[in-house]
Amino acid sequence: MPLDPSRTVVELRELQELTGDENGAQRVAWTDTWEQAREWLRGKVAPLGAEESVDAAGNQWFTLRGASDKAVLIGGHIDSVPNGGWLDGALNVVAGLEVLRRLAEEGTPPVTVRLVNWADEEGARFGRSLFGSSAAAGSMTDQDELRARKDAAGIALADALGQHGVELDRAVDAARELEGAAAYLELHIEQGPVLESMDLPLGVVLGTFGVERHQIRFRGQAAHAGSTPMDKRRDALAGVARLELEIREIAKRTGDGAVCTMGGVVTKPGIVTSVVETAECLLDQRHLDAGKLAAMLGDAKRASERFAEEEDIAVEWERIWNIEPILFDDALVDLADEAIKEVAGKSHRLPSGPLHDAAEVARAGIPTVMVFVQSLRGLSHTKLEDTKEEHLGLAVQVLDRLATKTIARVAAG
Amino acid sequence: MPLDPSRTVVELRELQELTGDENGAQRVAWTDTWEQAREWLRGKVAPLGAEESVDAAGNQWFTLRGASDKAVLIGGHIDSVPNGGWLDGALNVVAGLEVLRRLAEEGTPPVTVRLVNWADEEGARFGRSLFGSSAAAGSMTDQDELRARKDAAGIALADALGQHGVELDRAVDAARELEGAAAYLELHIEQGPVLESMDLPLGVVLGTFGVERHQIRFRGQAAHAGSTPMDKRRDALAGVARLELEIREIAKRTGDGAVCTMGGVVTKPGIVTSVVETAECLLDQRHLDAGKLAAMLGDAKRASERFAEEEDIAVEWERIWNIEPILFDDALVDLADEAIKEVAGKSHRLPSGPLHDAAEVARAGIPTVMVFVQSLRGLSHTKLEDTKEEHLGLAVQVLDRLATKTIARVAAG
Repeated sequence: MPLDPSRTVVELRELQELTGDENGAQRVAWTDTWEQAREWLRGKVAPLGAEESVDAAGNQWFTLRGASDKAVLIGGHIDSVPNGGWLDGALNVVAGLEVLRRLAEEGTPPVTVRLVNWADEEGARFGRSLFGSSAAAGSMTDQDELRARKDAAGIALADALGQHGVELDRAVDAARELEGAAAYLELHIEQGPVLESMDLPLGVVLGTFGVERHQIRFRGQAAHAGSTPMDKRRDALAGVARLELEIREIAKRTGDGAVCTMGGVVTKPGIVTSVVETAECLLDQRHLDAGKLAAMLGDAKRASERFAEEEDIAVEWERIWNIEPILFDDALVDLADEAIKEVAGKSHRLPSGPLHDAAEVARAGIPTVMVFVQSLRGLSHTKLEDTKEEHLGLAVQVLDRLATKTIARVAAG
Repeated sequence: MPLDPSRTVVELRELQELTGDENGAQRVAWTDTWEQAREWLRGKVAPLGAEESVDAAGNQWFTLRGASDKAVLIGGHIDSVPNGGWLDGALNVVAGLEVLRRLAEEGTPPVTVRLVNWADEEGARFGRSLFGSSAAAGSMTDQDELRARKDAAGIALADALGQHGVELDRAVDAARELEGAAAYLELHIEQGPVLESMDLPLGVVLGTFGVERHQIRFRGQAAHAGSTPMDKRRDALAGVARLELEIREIAKRTGDGAVCTMGGVVTKPGIVTSVVETAECLLDQRHLDAGKLAAMLGDAKRASERFAEEEDIAVEWERIWNIEPILFDDALVDLADEAIKEVAGKSHRLPSGPLHDAAEVARAGIPTVMVFVQSLRGLSHTKLEDTKEEHLGLAVQVLDRLATKTIARVAAG
């Protein structure tokens, strides 16, 4: 069978019909609907002669044995958030299926090719994203914490996993699946507005941003809004306001895709008749360069301390979470760039703001690259998520070409 | 009996002992504890020969008949907020009691002198402040709305009033009490930091600020904190942050005591991974000059619209409440200034940020003035509210001298 990109679109709609409803995709990991989607994928791959296996973390593998044991991996995730979109994760699984079909048709490939459907990328039910890929990558170090996790109904993560044949304590045994892996390829919707704004269907991803997340608390003094002169105030909100404007300047002067976001503010007492005593805000900073990310964080901290001093208020920082930038493989980035140019004429290199399974695989030392296809209006994690069909078709062609180039590269050693 | 300012302090402590607890004053209007405080006051005035009456709004009047029916009123409120301070309201009732004692001792005054204990100044239980004074002043126009009010336990305002002998529909009949009133005097703690910062015990109040209260809503677009470049964002929080800083500039350049306060901010979705889509804030602006207040409001609106345009977000304003500035009587302000200088050496003229019963009386056309005594740390509406005893003593002397001067002025026509 020659490659048929339009079939990918048909199959994605078939999957959405089977596992979605009027509110969007409902393939939340560790649920019956998710298992139904996995069964659907199993049925699609069966005629191709690729062997199916499910690893210790619940990841679903389809292996097309090649002349060499060295393996090129194509990975995605069929799980979605509740009321999610039809493309986030599923696109690459279904596009990868089409590439596998084309390869299987052509006989034994020079190297082994494996399609992997990672378990629980979204972490929608238990708040732990990248479950299956981090287990395989050897970076899952939080089992003790995971053992205590429950979903909204009070069901423990370990019990939910058990119902799908996965033992939490053994999940990290999935690491053996990456032995022999020589390259990892992932196609994903951008989930942002960059490609659409540049009128480009596709781009190659340089890596995933490093992230610094903090909660910052400014403390001033509550005071009557009528009886307290302006020069006698210690207004905690002023610290937040100045920091919100400053982080934009920090991002702008850092450049290279730097982003800083103040996502929420909580004021206390928060009433119209009082100066704000305590103002808490959430800060998210991201950059592809670890040094620049550290500098952005330092700049924001110093600025907040200067504002606190000038406003006669106090400030304290608490880290919520952070992760280092994860860079993809230079040679594979070049191959993906070539593939995009051949199919779509023009390519663009961009960082990924969101994390992806590909970041976990890259952390494990496997040469990795991702391709982004344009998202309409940058929307994702909503049923409004969409991509033009012609762009989906181009994306399948790019993944196919990238797979061919990568197989050739790995086969050549 | 000569004036004994120290007795006022003793009686204030007695009242606090009787009607407060370890959390502060508990004389919430329309409760048994409040009625107990009124009974206590009744007992204190009884020996003086002043006639007691309770008007249609529940205001408690003590009348010392003079040679003329023209009346000088001294007013305060014995009700408090829950967990309130020992001085807010009660100070003037108890100081007025001491002045009444001194006057009664001296025989029939040239004009009638009346001490009024206004009902429900704080509005702590039903959220309607200045109840009794607005009824007497003829400015209570919200009976329909008041009829629907309930306290936290679901008890209707009208029912609670009924238990204290007040019919809501007849409350405005209290207006007849102001017939013949020629002057109104009120002593109050400042509830702000101005006199303390100037190291002055007392000041004369020029009037109460006009107030403009608005809720302002900026609407942008939620967007992923990782995948949305800075220049593609429509961040509603930026509008709030810029307005918070701008209102301080507006107050500063307006001067003459102008205050602007952003008391609360609510952000949606308010999560660390998203640009803020909607940011609502509360704005309170106050000035003693109606024109300047209107200009401050106009400046803030124009600024918010400029910010919205520059940030590619929307902005809408909704008025929560407003009141015009209420100016006190020039001649009485001069008399109060004299009295303060005679007693304490130095006076200061200042506006009142908070509203007071005096503002209602002034709106009714009665020549009115207030005297403020220093508040320690500007605290009020808390058990931490306090004023030095020596300053309380000076305050009673000032009220007494001001009463003497006012009586002489009214008697002279």
